[in-house]
Amino acid sequence: MINEQYKAMLNGKSVIRELAEYATARGKEIGYENVFDYTLGNPSVPCPEEYTKAVLDIYKEMDPMAIHGYSPSLGNPQAREYLAKELSERFGIPYETKHIFMTSGAASSLAHAFRLVTKPGDEIIGFAPFFPEYRPYIKDTGAIFKIVPPDTSDFQIQFEEFEKMLNPNVSAVLINSPNNPSGVIYSEKTLERLASILEAKQKEYGHDIFIISDEPYREIAFDGKTTPYPSKFYDNTISCYSYSKGMSLPGERIGYMAFNPKCTDADIDAVICGQISRGIGHNCPSATQQIAIYKTGFKLSDTSVYETNANLIYDQLVELGFEVVKPQGTFYIFPKALEEDANVFCKKAMKYDLLMVPGDTFGCPGYFRMAYCIDTDKVKRSLPVLKKFVEEEYK
Amino acid sequence: MINEQYKAMLNGKSVIRELAEYATARGKEIGYENVFDYTLGNPSVPCPEEYTKAVLDIYKEMDPMAIHGYSPSLGNPQAREYLAKELSERFGIPYETKHIFMTSGAASSLAHAFRLVTKPGDEIIGFAPFFPEYRPYIKDTGAIFKIVPPDTSDFQIQFEEFEKMLNPNVSAVLINSPNNPSGVIYSEKTLERLASILEAKQKEYGHDIFIISDEPYREIAFDGKTTPYPSKFYDNTISCYSYSKGMSLPGERIGYMAFNPKCTDADIDAVICGQISRGIGHNCPSATQQIAIYKTGFKLSDTSVYETNANLIYDQLVELGFEVVKPQGTFYIFPKALEEDANVFCKKAMKYDLLMVPGDTFGCPGYFRMAYCIDTDKVKRSLPVLKKFVEEEYK
Repeated sequence: MINEQYKAMLNGKSVIRELAEYATARGKEIGYENVFDYTLGNPSVPCPEEYTKAVLDIYKEMDPMAIHGYSPSLGNPQAREYLAKELSERFGIPYETKHIFMTSGAASSLAHAFRLVTKPGDEIIGFAPFFPEYRPYIKDTGAIFKIVPPDTSDFQIQFEEFEKMLNPNVSAVLINSPNNPSGVIYSEKTLERLASILEAKQKEYGHDIFIISDEPYREIAFDGKTTPYPSKFYDNTISCYSYSKGMSLPGERIGYMAFNPKCTDADIDAVICGQISRGIGHNCPSATQQIAIYKTGFKLSDTSVYETNANLIYDQLVELGFEVVKPQGTFYIFPKALEEDANVFCKKAMKYDLLMVPGDTFGCPGYFRMAYCIDTDKVKRSLPVLKKFVEEEYK
Repeated sequence: MINEQYKAMLNGKSVIRELAEYATARGKEIGYENVFDYTLGNPSVPCPEEYTKAVLDIYKEMDPMAIHGYSPSLGNPQAREYLAKELSERFGIPYETKHIFMTSGAASSLAHAFRLVTKPGDEIIGFAPFFPEYRPYIKDTGAIFKIVPPDTSDFQIQFEEFEKMLNPNVSAVLINSPNNPSGVIYSEKTLERLASILEAKQKEYGHDIFIISDEPYREIAFDGKTTPYPSKFYDNTISCYSYSKGMSLPGERIGYMAFNPKCTDADIDAVICGQISRGIGHNCPSATQQIAIYKTGFKLSDTSVYETNANLIYDQLVELGFEVVKPQGTFYIFPKALEEDANVFCKKAMKYDLLMVPGDTFGCPGYFRMAYCIDTDKVKRSLPVLKKFVEEEYK
């Protein structure tokens, strides 16, 4: 018999995917260039040229069997060694090869992290607004996902609520900065306060509480700033990275986990992840991709278009009277809707071919997400339409 | 706290990996060419040239964003469409695109299949000898793995034992033909009998019993023969494929599941697998690999060396008086050891730098596996050593 639990999930379709499917269908009717599709977080800039060159070099210089052979279960040793060095230099944390575990992207990094530091029945605390896939990711592990309500004034952390929710069953805290969907970056002050609360609670409870830090947008920060690196603030931190966003390689499913050298069992956490892989059907990312990563080195896509788009949209939203926090990174903005139910708001916007995602799915009703990883030209063409929509429906 | 269940797995290290590590270490001492390393099932022939050409063409002809963008969660539609066509033509089963689900190799195919057709507490029946990783793969799903003892006369199925073990808790049967470690291919007669028993039991129990068919060695068959395709014999069959062996791409983590169009819920099984992926951190294989697969089409590595090696080793073993079933495919042979405990036998062989894996780990004590995916020259050089070992230790 087909497993009823998974079959039942078919009814709970992703709101984002449904909207994206509508966008495609609508595009066939009126031309996709006329659909202002702000639904999907799919990078709109190409990967760095250095990456493409690295792949072609691999094919030129290496033997097919050396390229395509099995990589060890913790990942290609040269890729792990390279990453330990890169992260050490960038963040001043003395990572060694043993602290790096190669994964097939963010979902895989998180699947390993949740299983590593929780057991069924444990609690993982997250913060609204949050990436909706965290729910199914965590559900399958048997841990319980608890959500701290959003601080809508700046989308940092509502610490009073967070402290109320802490209890001895909590074994992990899940953060995501720069944040999908708010576009906000956790400040040093936020990370310091989070660390100090958790350190006290670890002592009080007599057990570890890990920070699982989901960082696919780490390098997409605006205004010349860099993202404070959570692992610098708290030893029990697992940094989960994906090359999907900063290097525009979402389809290649490549990423890694970096264990803070001072975290519990730091010397064997990657090895334990190798054991976790066996049960969930994960056997390393593509061998070619792993080689390409260390041959490319630390190179990023030109993501300046996201900042250009962020500014254009932010200014227009402010002018139209929206309550909105200015994005500090990512390619998302998360304004408050002009009526209580953001679903109704987004539905009305669809009549203008403006496609945006209601905040309910991110644990923050009344808000909506715009993913502006699209051409600036289209953003510019969408602004008068946004204005028309607001004036016709809400003035 | 670090999950104790996974931490405990560190003590249960893989025998095969330990031997392989010894082989590497010993190679550093005496030169790897002098270590007769028959431990690892790692292909020793390159991928087809057509595949390499396909990858280079992709880089020449396609836009980086089209190559590296997200693929839909069930896989690249063109890859799925191509595979439905390929399998329909080869096996006469009318697969459609919806019956194909792209996976990151065999481990991933099986991780999805087990979750799709079982729930915790259900039984999955397998047949000794079997690939040892089946144990951890199944354990994490909560299903129970029951093993039918081997028929050592020909390594087909011991049906009397199998029928005794069937009961209403059985929801799946796991087969692997051509078989690792025996090198044997299930005959049409075996598959017919298996199907007829299962059909009767499905009626008796009033529920499905699926065959999960693990087929990474499908195309490595000797003597001009082809492997009978299990799905042709039984409708409730899920064919799990990996490009690791026949195309020598083990590091690329690419494979698929094919649902027999007549199996239960055939129209939505791939969609349900998309839901299963969310919980186990799987998000499609590499996008480049998926494109490369349909651009390459049905091409195989030149695996004739495996047959050459099989014959050389088989003849020598027979001459030395071993009890051994002649391999019909794969790159394995599974003879009976010359003393009761194959661990002791293999340990003694190590003194001659002959590295072979005791059968206990495959659920078949007293036998040992030789993986002859190595150069024929080395095989030839190993034969007098094998003879010397047998004569000195057992005559």
